[in-house]
Amino acid sequence: MSDYLSGSLRRLRPYTPGEQPQDRTYIKLNTNESPYPPSPGVLDALNRQEAADLRLYSDPEAGELKAALAARYGVGLENVFVSNGSDEALNFAFLAYATDGRGVAFADITYGFYPVFAGLYDIPVHTVPLREDFRLAVEDYLGLHQTVVIANPNAPTGLALTRAEVEQVVQGNPDAVVVIDEAYVDFGGESAVELTGRYPNLLVVQTFSKSRSLAGARLGYAIGPAELIADLERIKYATNPYNVNRLTLRAGTQALADRAYFEENCRQIMQTRAYTARRLEELGFSCTDSRANFLFARHPHLSGQAVYQGLKERGVLVRHFDGARIVDYNRITVGTRDQMEILLQRLEELL
Amino acid sequence: MSDYLSGSLRRLRPYTPGEQPQDRTYIKLNTNESPYPPSPGVLDALNRQEAADLRLYSDPEAGELKAALAARYGVGLENVFVSNGSDEALNFAFLAYATDGRGVAFADITYGFYPVFAGLYDIPVHTVPLREDFRLAVEDYLGLHQTVVIANPNAPTGLALTRAEVEQVVQGNPDAVVVIDEAYVDFGGESAVELTGRYPNLLVVQTFSKSRSLAGARLGYAIGPAELIADLERIKYATNPYNVNRLTLRAGTQALADRAYFEENCRQIMQTRAYTARRLEELGFSCTDSRANFLFARHPHLSGQAVYQGLKERGVLVRHFDGARIVDYNRITVGTRDQMEILLQRLEELL
Repeated sequence: MSDYLSGSLRRLRPYTPGEQPQDRTYIKLNTNESPYPPSPGVLDALNRQEAADLRLYSDPEAGELKAALAARYGVGLENVFVSNGSDEALNFAFLAYATDGRGVAFADITYGFYPVFAGLYDIPVHTVPLREDFRLAVEDYLGLHQTVVIANPNAPTGLALTRAEVEQVVQGNPDAVVVIDEAYVDFGGESAVELTGRYPNLLVVQTFSKSRSLAGARLGYAIGPAELIADLERIKYATNPYNVNRLTLRAGTQALADRAYFEENCRQIMQTRAYTARRLEELGFSCTDSRANFLFARHPHLSGQAVYQGLKERGVLVRHFDGARIVDYNRITVGTRDQMEILLQRLEELL
Repeated sequence: MSDYLSGSLRRLRPYTPGEQPQDRTYIKLNTNESPYPPSPGVLDALNRQEAADLRLYSDPEAGELKAALAARYGVGLENVFVSNGSDEALNFAFLAYATDGRGVAFADITYGFYPVFAGLYDIPVHTVPLREDFRLAVEDYLGLHQTVVIANPNAPTGLALTRAEVEQVVQGNPDAVVVIDEAYVDFGGESAVELTGRYPNLLVVQTFSKSRSLAGARLGYAIGPAELIADLERIKYATNPYNVNRLTLRAGTQALADRAYFEENCRQIMQTRAYTARRLEELGFSCTDSRANFLFARHPHLSGQAVYQGLKERGVLVRHFDGARIVDYNRITVGTRDQMEILLQRLEELL
């Protein structure tokens, strides 16, 4: 840190991404990536001609991809914002709707980036604790008079609200924007996208990172009323109009076209999740009812840290968080069935 | 714009990128892209396996690319920051060093994004006019007690400071960070990179967009003292740790390796620039002494708007700016020799 750095940034605690150790090859079940490559159509689309065209700027309006997203979700072009990963859309939403002293409300256990965005812009945070069983109780989220951010399904718990519950939160905060972060929705959650046409204060954020196997391409999007989308565009054109590169725009458009591949991958991951949860329970673990591409599991006789460390020593990386209420747990990405068999075998050794 | 948008963002005037009309095919000389594709090595590197690996997050530390940049510029890994286009590095520098009421100083005629970044963060702007001949006079930039941002070569004028002049500005503002935006430096400017080891307050920003033909890949970087780089990393980890996608990291590393291709393209563009300037002057235009991959030209008998419009009707796009002092000019990207011949022919028709 230099002596020149501005005050509020000096106090900031940045986000810690999942570890990416270079010392050996691990079975990586720690960052919720897809075990499957992008669709064959995406691989075909990223050809030599597309690479040659990298000399040209990307389309700042992301016209082709927006049209594909609008068609996919049954909304207008003016209802779609395209971002450099969903983190960028979330970042812009914090800046747009939670500064001016208004503040933001989110759960005590949720995506670790929300407090970081708040710190970045000096935004007051109202932490609304999840219930004892990690359930997000809708009645805790009504009439808050603050921007509300909910990950649905939540991370790292995997628990999901129904669409009707989300609608109650949206209705219960008419003077504030409600951001629903649906990074994991394609693995069995109920999306709130279809509600965006009816409420001026609902913004839904999704990503191509998980269900469409494009984490490394950096592509996210927001769907919402035209006025909210215009706000995000405004910030984009004041920071980085060419926020998404050409190849990623191309990959995203093609990934949407290859719908059967996407659906099959999601189905496969949900099936592997159910199988792995059952096997983990046979080993004594208890798992939350995850609707995401990860499991959140603890064992009565082994600490979360011991499970994490023991797996790492055996070549399997999972994610362990320090927070007091979740210190007993590990978040385990659902990989291929083969990867899960190795995980289970290593856990048996550990126990 | 929604009723929910925060106050300072309501007043913001976003940046206007160069037009990208879809109605017909133009010879595009309006956004300073390279007329040459990325190197063959880059095209080879972006292969099917790399596309398949997009399922995995990109390296947030950008280790491979940073090592290549550090080797290329003779600095340490801790002196390199990698960004999603150089706009992102500039954005972070404004946030890091010009908020807290300190303000920022830059020229009246320069890159149009600087006032936008200032507006985004409510940063007071001290405009330091260029001299009558568009020259940036070093004596106007001493002891400002504000963050100083200088595009060198400047845009859209193309005029460049010597390294010694940049050093005077850096020495003359010891209590402030001096950002030198070298987007166009590879076309005949003198880079200040070699000064970064000697001054704690000098940050140099460059891009792969122009001289390395990767505008559409979105890749920039900053080189500076370790403390300043740590500040930018801090902001990156508080906004979007995976700010650059996998394919772009790969492309950038390979582009640096293919140094002969890069040098030959720069040489070719400088040669075409000299040829085009001479021919323009034969047609009565006067051109600034551009060290960038564009020319900045006006005609004594034709308004800047008339030249712009006449060329557009004839299928050639150049960039015209509204600012009072430059309204007679157009900024013309240096394309291939063939593109320049068509430009010159269209201008002859116009005259």
